[in-house]
Amino acid sequence: MSTRTLPGNPAEVRHMIETGEWRGVTAGVAPGFVQANLAILPKEQAFDFLLFCQRNPKPCPVLEVIEPGQVEPKSMAPGADIRTTIPKYRVYNNGEAAGDEDDVRSVWRDDLVSFLLGCSFSFENAMLNAGIPLRHIERQHNVSMFRTNIETTPAGPFSGPMVVSMRPVHHSQVVRAVQVTSRFPATHGAPVHVGDPEAIGIEDITRPDYGDPTEIREDEVPIFWACGVTPQAVAAKSKPPFMITHSPGYMFITDWRDEDMAVL
Amino acid sequence: MSTRTLPGNPAEVRHMIETGEWRGVTAGVAPGFVQANLAILPKEQAFDFLLFCQRNPKPCPVLEVIEPGQVEPKSMAPGADIRTTIPKYRVYNNGEAAGDEDDVRSVWRDDLVSFLLGCSFSFENAMLNAGIPLRHIERQHNVSMFRTNIETTPAGPFSGPMVVSMRPVHHSQVVRAVQVTSRFPATHGAPVHVGDPEAIGIEDITRPDYGDPTEIREDEVPIFWACGVTPQAVAAKSKPPFMITHSPGYMFITDWRDEDMAVL
Repeated sequence: MSTRTLPGNPAEVRHMIETGEWRGVTAGVAPGFVQANLAILPKEQAFDFLLFCQRNPKPCPVLEVIEPGQVEPKSMAPGADIRTTIPKYRVYNNGEAAGDEDDVRSVWRDDLVSFLLGCSFSFENAMLNAGIPLRHIERQHNVSMFRTNIETTPAGPFSGPMVVSMRPVHHSQVVRAVQVTSRFPATHGAPVHVGDPEAIGIEDITRPDYGDPTEIREDEVPIFWACGVTPQAVAAKSKPPFMITHSPGYMFITDWRDEDMAVL
Repeated sequence: MSTRTLPGNPAEVRHMIETGEWRGVTAGVAPGFVQANLAILPKEQAFDFLLFCQRNPKPCPVLEVIEPGQVEPKSMAPGADIRTTIPKYRVYNNGEAAGDEDDVRSVWRDDLVSFLLGCSFSFENAMLNAGIPLRHIERQHNVSMFRTNIETTPAGPFSGPMVVSMRPVHHSQVVRAVQVTSRFPATHGAPVHVGDPEAIGIEDITRPDYGDPTEIREDEVPIFWACGVTPQAVAAKSKPPFMITHSPGYMFITDWRDEDMAVL
């Protein structure tokens, strides 16, 4: 089933995922509703990870935390089971990816704490609504992501460089792009950098560390936003004994509307 | 020494507190710099309390968390010792106030986690800068605070009603009051309610649960903001074995400027 023919209601889409009727990448699905990154860690690591997110709200904006052993995102998707309603999960042992799963009930434990973190789709919708085109969407490729020389603020075992995503914006729309994305601090929000890639330690803008290369035209300025890959990279680097995340591109679809997250 | 003759530099004021040269209430001290509420809890309660704050960011905006046993607010006041640089502390055993202290080094433990939470002074400065007068400051009395029927979202042992502060605003300035305070989500930010006190469970607006009564004139509208008394009330109600807070009115003065906290 193609994304275009899916229902627009988040609960219906989650039901189709749970029953195996549909399990695709979630970009463009249930438009206008917030999608979330997922990180699940044992309670033993949960305080330090929550502290890491609190100290680094731009790359790690916490939307909801589900308490140890609980599986329902009571605030963002009441009634849902976080173990069965994401199209594809990734399971890690000691920081190493052990494989992708459709359902993580078989590996569930009573000490697991689930973190839902903001993703870029909300502010990208805000840009599109403001008439700012997004090349990676037009060309249907993945956004370009880069490791930077911007250090996150460590907490316990969690540390490492911030990962950013880059979108080229016409010089006449740079101010507007900063304004409209600033309304969404819970989903990465305002850019972390505008202009020269070298200033934040990116040596070759044509060679992203994650995702696909993106053309930047003469009359465009590269703008950089903190990226949700950061917490996953940081968590994996700390080699927790066990971790579950979503598989890249397969996000959790919540009942919240993008505008519910706006500060103004 | 009166507040007016104190230095304007936060580090100098903290030094005078630490040496005992001055230990007054901090309203109006080091104007333009962020002041913070303090809550210190054992590590055993820290994850749930951080989670409570994450779930209730309006009453409990986390500015900085100092890890177990550590005493330096590295982000907001590098070099300071959180145990000696607040003019007056309050120590609790099993939820009961055991007394006020000038210095808490003698009761310090290696498992204590310190939370600095936003306070209303930053958004009050924003209102004053926007030409919106504040009656409790003009009359030099405490702001009126009320328990409401707005329930916080619980986390572990922490739960209870939201406490709000009330400031009367001339009807012509209500919109501006919402706008200017919305810029400061890390220090309580936008109001939680405008107008009818009964709608949020306040039966008698002339009898505050905390602080002093405040006159509301015919042409004024009462506006309500989430209040930093909430986390203290909630924490005390959960009766943790041990807790330290600031004594009401005696806040921690940080090196951050109010404008550093603004989202736009």
